[in-house]
Amino acid sequence: MTVLGLGAMGTALAQAFVSAGHPTTVWNRTPGRAPGLTGVTRAKTVADAVSASSLIVVCLLDDASVQEALAPAATEFTGRTLVNLTNGTPAHARRTADWATQQGADYLDGGIMAVPAMIGGPAGFILYSGSEAAFEKYGAVLSAVARPQFVGTDPGLAALQDLALLSGMYGMFAGAFHALALTSSEKVSPTAFAEQLLVPWLTAMLGSIPAIARDLEYGADGAAGSNLAMQSAGFANLLDASRAQGVDPVLLAPMDDLLARAVHEGHGDEDLAAVVQLLRTAG
Amino acid sequence: MTVLGLGAMGTALAQAFVSAGHPTTVWNRTPGRAPGLTGVTRAKTVADAVSASSLIVVCLLDDASVQEALAPAATEFTGRTLVNLTNGTPAHARRTADWATQQGADYLDGGIMAVPAMIGGPAGFILYSGSEAAFEKYGAVLSAVARPQFVGTDPGLAALQDLALLSGMYGMFAGAFHALALTSSEKVSPTAFAEQLLVPWLTAMLGSIPAIARDLEYGADGAAGSNLAMQSAGFANLLDASRAQGVDPVLLAPMDDLLARAVHEGHGDEDLAAVVQLLRTAG
Repeated sequence: MTVLGLGAMGTALAQAFVSAGHPTTVWNRTPGRAPGLTGVTRAKTVADAVSASSLIVVCLLDDASVQEALAPAATEFTGRTLVNLTNGTPAHARRTADWATQQGADYLDGGIMAVPAMIGGPAGFILYSGSEAAFEKYGAVLSAVARPQFVGTDPGLAALQDLALLSGMYGMFAGAFHALALTSSEKVSPTAFAEQLLVPWLTAMLGSIPAIARDLEYGADGAAGSNLAMQSAGFANLLDASRAQGVDPVLLAPMDDLLARAVHEGHGDEDLAAVVQLLRTAG
Repeated sequence: MTVLGLGAMGTALAQAFVSAGHPTTVWNRTPGRAPGLTGVTRAKTVADAVSASSLIVVCLLDDASVQEALAPAATEFTGRTLVNLTNGTPAHARRTADWATQQGADYLDGGIMAVPAMIGGPAGFILYSGSEAAFEKYGAVLSAVARPQFVGTDPGLAALQDLALLSGMYGMFAGAFHALALTSSEKVSPTAFAEQLLVPWLTAMLGSIPAIARDLEYGADGAAGSNLAMQSAGFANLLDASRAQGVDPVLLAPMDDLLARAVHEGHGDEDLAAVVQLLRTAG
């Protein structure tokens, strides 16, 4: 196959294909990138790179780079499959899918749930959406870089769920940062706290998330545990106590505002799913 | 033992002691609360309640309520053990510990990591700090309400780590709320997303938290995965893409600011532990 883009991730993808025994052609806008990458054919032009393989994997900096890189090779795409692993939005994915279809190519959009060091290993995975025929044809080959998971024929769905998973991770990290700042304000080992208390506690609390999702999807029968009014009252104490410990509660402050707004708008006796609704500004 | 306070949590505590076969005296400022609680002795005054038992568990609305409730019974506390399970700060805990010591009482402060419905069951736990002798004497009795975990002789340490765990939970929920708002902006089942993708992904990412704590405690050898400059650049895209999906990124916006500030202050090639330091305003 062909890999377009030899940044840290593109290089890791190409290396994983080579390691799995697949003949691999690579191209990068600036020549000479990833000199340590061996066993590949280096194409001089993007058109040469595309015409070398039936499967073209593109992993560039952003959507604008993808548009710019692919345009000179547009006529080469007929009958090939384009797999776009560049970070982007659902709208980007749908536009590139339309472009690929116009060139007579099959299109898969992918969201990589891994850092480059995890590529070729067992821990990461990649969400794919778009052409189911392309996924059936190339899923096994693509599994050389990370476990592939097909999430739908709408090409925007992989990017959407990639964004959602990253959001979830950064929220969890924000909470952990605040927690670690609190424990390091006193003589508590952050490592012992993280290993013995925080991770087991968050693991247990993860079980609440599908329940919140079910309430959001099917409606809730009122609050099962602490309702929003109780949580809003307790949350103000959490921020005050953090300030008293010399910890800036900036990462948690918007949750305080949102809980207060939910109560103010009449959702005080409801459950956390009501807060999710407040984040929707359209649709 | 004696339980002071019959709110939802105090009632659950008293019920769990009764169910475990312990003779239990209860008191509440407003009489007649928790009429469904049977098998208990109801004391008319807080002094009667305190003098009825060697172990006094107090669980009231807030620290001010504790001070107000205990004052009239101060002289009754000599030789007894006070266990304070009221939500509060490390400073509250230390002040009440001093007060108890002045009355000749042993003191344990506790942070309940459970909602009332979990009391008496296997899922919750309670952090204790303060008198180790009291914990050794009463730990087995206190296990009737939830698994007890002793975290240190400084009475403030249970409240500190309780606050830290709650912070971590709310951060994780904030990320999940944003993720669920994103998926519900399109034709994706929030329940399927939560069960099949979000929870497994967050479970995997939990493994990063002890690494961040170790970097914070022992210093980091530079960024192992994506450094802060890369994460800051990617984060702006995450917020833009959320807005494009009709989702208000209010819960994640402070992380964007904090990552940008870390880069601006020269930490661009460092790891996430550098962000935790920015939350410390004192100490």
